[in-house]
Order: sequence, then C-alpha cells, then structure tokens
Amino acid sequence: MVLTADGRLRVAVVGTGLIGGSVLLRLHACGLDVTGWDPDEQTRRQARLAGVPTAERLVDAVADRDVVFLGGPLPTLPATLVEVATATGEECLLTDVGSTKAALAAFAAQRGLTRRFVPGHPMAGADRAGLAAALPDLFAGASWVLCPAPDGLAAFRRLATLLTEVFAARVVPMAADRHDAVVALASHVPHLLAGALAGAAQRSPLSDAVLTLAAGSFRDGTRVAGTPPQRTVNMLRGNRDEVLAALTEVTAFLDELAGALRSGDGDRLADRYVEAGAARAALVGRPYDQQVRSFPVGEERAELDWLCGLGAAGGHLSACQVRGGTVYYTAHRPPTARA
Amino acid sequence: MVLTADGRLRVAVVGTGLIGGSVLLRLHACGLDVTGWDPDEQTRRQARLAGVPTAERLVDAVADRDVVFLGGPLPTLPATLVEVATATGEECLLTDVGSTKAALAAFAAQRGLTRRFVPGHPMAGADRAGLAAALPDLFAGASWVLCPAPDGLAAFRRLATLLTEVFAARVVPMAADRHDAVVALASHVPHLLAGALAGAAQRSPLSDAVLTLAAGSFRDGTRVAGTPPQRTVNMLRGNRDEVLAALTEVTAFLDELAGALRSGDGDRLADRYVEAGAARAALVGRPYDQQVRSFPVGEERAELDWLCGLGAAGGHLSACQVRGGTVYYTAHRPPTARA
Repeated sequence: MVLTADGRLRVAVVGTGLIGGSVLLRLHACGLDVTGWDPDEQTRRQARLAGVPTAERLVDAVADRDVVFLGGPLPTLPATLVEVATATGEECLLTDVGSTKAALAAFAAQRGLTRRFVPGHPMAGADRAGLAAALPDLFAGASWVLCPAPDGLAAFRRLATLLTEVFAARVVPMAADRHDAVVALASHVPHLLAGALAGAAQRSPLSDAVLTLAAGSFRDGTRVAGTPPQRTVNMLRGNRDEVLAALTEVTAFLDELAGALRSGDGDRLADRYVEAGAARAALVGRPYDQQVRSFPVGEERAELDWLCGLGAAGGHLSACQVRGGTVYYTAHRPPTARA
Repeated sequence: MVLTADGRLRVAVVGTGLIGGSVLLRLHACGLDVTGWDPDEQTRRQARLAGVPTAERLVDAVADRDVVFLGGPLPTLPATLVEVATATGEECLLTDVGSTKAALAAFAAQRGLTRRFVPGHPMAGADRAGLAAALPDLFAGASWVLCPAPDGLAAFRRLATLLTEVFAARVVPMAADRHDAVVALASHVPHLLAGALAGAAQRSPLSDAVLTLAAGSFRDGTRVAGTPPQRTVNMLRGNRDEVLAALTEVTAFLDELAGALRSGDGDRLADRYVEAGAARAALVGRPYDQQVRSFPVGEERAELDWLCGLGAAGGHLSACQVRGGTVYYTAHRPPTARA
C-alpha cells in the first residue's frame, strides 16, 4: 500500500453521487482517513448520517490530503479540478471518475497539472443516481481506466496501487483519446441503442402490448434508458465525435443484418450472427495470460509505452509495487491470437 | 383444471428443446400424464435419463392424448402440425410454442385446424439451446400469447386454464398478426440491435479494449447476440416484414438522438431520453386493474373481441373457468390513461 510518512493515507472525495459516493464508502469501509464533500447539503447530511466524515466546505475536505477523487457531473469537473488543485499542495494526487477523458486531460495539461492529476474512469454504474444508490463494493473486479501522462507516472503508480489494493479493481492504463474511442463503443452507443428501442416502444401505437410481451432481449436492451437523462446527455455530449463515429460502425453492421433479412439470405444473416457471437463469447469467457513486468524508476518512456500497449490490447493490472528504485506490475493480457 | 372423464389430463410434447423441454419438465413436475418426443435420439435419451416418459416415435407420443404442445425449430412447425393432427383425434387440442404466429395460423386455417389448434408463444427463453438448458419454472409469471380463432374458443379456454394453472403463466390473448407486429418490437428488433453492437465490437480495431471496458450497458445490450445463430435467423425470417417495419421506427428514433447529439442540442437530447425513460418506467412498475369478466358460452363474437382487446391493451388473464354454460376470466389490464 502507498502510505504516507505517518503510515495512514489521507483521502478526500469531492462530489459524492453514485460513483464518488461509492468511492467514499469503500475508502471509509477499508479504514482509510477519508473526508467527503458534495455541493448538495442534503447529500452531505446523508453522508454524515452514514457515519462518514464530511466537511461543510470543499477547502476543508481537501486540506492536507494525499489523494483527492473528483466526482460530480461531467461538465463540472474542469472547474472542480482547478478549485481542488488550488486548495491542495503539489504533492497531493488528483484523479477523477468522469466517463470521458480526452477533454479533461487536455485541460489539465494546459493548467500544468499532469504531474499530479491522473484522469480516471471506473467502468461501473447503476441506473439510479446519488449517494443513496452508492455501494462500497461497486468497483470490485471492475475495470478502472487510468490515463498516465509522460510526466505523471509516479502519480499513476501510487493510484494504481490504491485502486488494486483498496478497490480490488482491474486497472486499465490507456491514453485518454483511446479511452474515449473505446468507451464510445463499450458504453455510449449502447446508451443510444437503448434509448432508441425504449423511445420507439413508447411512441408505438402498440406500446401497451409491446411492454406486456417485452422479453429478456427488450428488458436488457433498454435497461440503461432508465438512467437519469441528464447524466446520459452529459456523457454523450462529452464524447460527441467518438460516439457518432462508433454509431456509424454499429449502424453499418445493422444495415448488413437488415439487408440480409430483407433479401431473405439466411446464410448471410447467420454468418453475421456468428461474427457477433464471437464478441459475446470473448466477453463472457476470456482467458488472460499473467505476467510480472518491472521497470527501473526513471525510464518513463518504456514504462508508459508498455502500459498503454497493455490497455490497448485489452489487458489490465492487478498490482503495482515500487521497491528500491524498481516498479513491479502484475499484468493480465488476453492471448494475442483472438480472432 | 380442465380434466378428462377419467380425471387425468394426458399431454404430449413434440420437439423438446429449450422451450418444448421446459414445457415437458413442468408438466411432468406437476404430475400430469405427459410423454415427450424429439427427432434427436440423444435428446430422447436425455429426457429418459431425467425420468420423463419419452416415446421412440412421434405417433406413439401423441396417440390418445388430450393436448399436444408442438415445439422445435420454427420452419418445422407446419409439417409437425400436419403430422400430429393426422395422428390424433378431433378432440385433441393442439398448440405450438413458436416465436412467430401469423404464417402458422394461416396455414392451420387452410388445413381446417382452427377448431383445435391454438397458436401460442411463451415469452421466455435463454441464450442456450436444447433440453439441457430447459427449466420447469421458465414460464412462471411470463406472458404466454394464445391466438384464438372464431371457431376455436373452446380450445382456447381449455388451454388458458392449463397455462394459468399448471405454468403460472400470464395468458395474453391476441390476434396472430397483431402478435407478430408486437414481438417485432418487443423481441426481434432487440436481437438485431444486439447483433449489430456485438458485431461492430468484434470488427473494430479496438475490439480487445472494447471488451475489457464493456460496462453493464454493453453486456446487457449484447446478451442475445450469444443466442444460437440459426434460432435467431429462423425467428427473424419468420417475421421479416414486421421486423423491418419495427426497425424503421427504432432507427427513426435513433436518428433523432444522433441528430440532437450532432447539433449539440442537449435539451432536445434530454427530452428524447425522458420519452424513452417513460417506457422503461412502465416496464418495471406497471400497475394492473383486476376484473372478472364472464360470457355465456355460445356468444363467441363478443368473447373473442373482448379477449383480443384485452391483449392489445397490454392486459392478460390469470384464470379461466367454465361453469354451467358460462366462462369466467380473471383479467388484469393496465390503466388506460398511460401517457
């Protein structure tokens, strides 16, 4: 564990809705010295009732902290980052939990914060919002993207250690723009499809009967259409160009399916479903090769390239330790031969 | 319960894969006199090993039966219907469990079988196929469509009693062509969207990373892409025109979402998600008004109209009893004012 001189990590979480709140609850449950803050007074009261230390002002929550997690609605994160960076010292690590990364990473670079701010994105969520929906175990086994900057590897290592040890998360190192292209397909377009399916059902003259006959495929396929609308809108707008590009790929495949169906070509339709089924099979039963990889602290370029290559290949880290000038990563990588 | 003179209903299930097999297991678990048959020899052996009576030949399975359920792949159902109708007497009720209804209903009408054949479709399933995946409780609480013909109400009533009492299913009476239009949106288009999303992910140069970052929205949205391809193809081809029409409605809504996103119109995007969310809210928390409705046996037109109106309005039956020349239905109907 990354500890401070007095042996106890001091953490703050700013913005304690569903995601930030789950971070807060986990850190508190693990016995870390953590303080939460949220602009919403009722949320602060809720946190206090749950027995979690909560400050009345942001500056009090983050003062003298070693690590600060930034949560809250996506459009608020740049201002929160500036506010927290100003209120904390140079040695205080900062990370966020927002669902898009490139814009915030660029903003942090402009402000000269890349040495201590590591953009992050835990791939977990729920249809509901707010601290009341937060769960301390939300991130156990989940992928948690961190976007290391060339001059931010020291910060990346300490956060990777914290996330694997305290949250049992799979840390996925990835460049910020790559992250945004990947989540466009892995999360944002699925929200568009769910919205389109639920919206068309709502508008249909057959709506009542459709909802009665809704089978598992409809229920699963529309689940995230029940997410609070503004959260979905913020996420999609924060990644607009990548989302529209990924949507083009998905509608191209949809057109192939519809074309094969229209022309009555059952073999072609079946071939496309075999192709689709391969992704599904890889999703539910993908094996990983495990390795321990080490780098001398100071050779940042090789370490950064290896980290970003690991994430791009679908791999993740389950441990990070720095001992005697060497960093040791425990890495898990899908076999390269996946069709 | 609809019983025969000797007090015990004799049932057969022909085609015992996932759905037919689940019907077979439920009937057997409830102590009915049931015999199964499947063209696949290994499936028959499997059923026997599970302690379920199984005939070696179709004719032996259906001889002297009161009710026969027809399962198996969708394209085989017309031939199976003819074969079973020929091997059974005029008083033997027939129903199927196929996922489209209009073509088979028309076929049965041509063959003069509407008095004893009631097209059916239980709205339950699983990603896996075959008797090994069958579950006796698969239909508990599930919607089960039955399509009554004007001269087939006596058969409909007896099946409705059987399905509610033995399977604890919600019987949804619906005209066959209406069923096909409804399931196009409630089940078939969701299979197209799942295939398109999984297929695009499989083809993407970012594929490995997409699968690693796949959040709940992607996992849920692609689940049915893991269904055996030929089953999906049969289902889509069996309802081609309705599926393509429903797909047009869904892609129109998708275009609205993409258009609002492209133009950066967050309010319009949020409005569309509010609309979509209404369907989702109705899906998970829809109340029903309960009533008991009776008809004198013999006034078929009024009964048929009421039944089909109930299904079209999103309602279902939880009981059906015939006593002294009157049929009593316990019906559940969503409040009419749903926005």
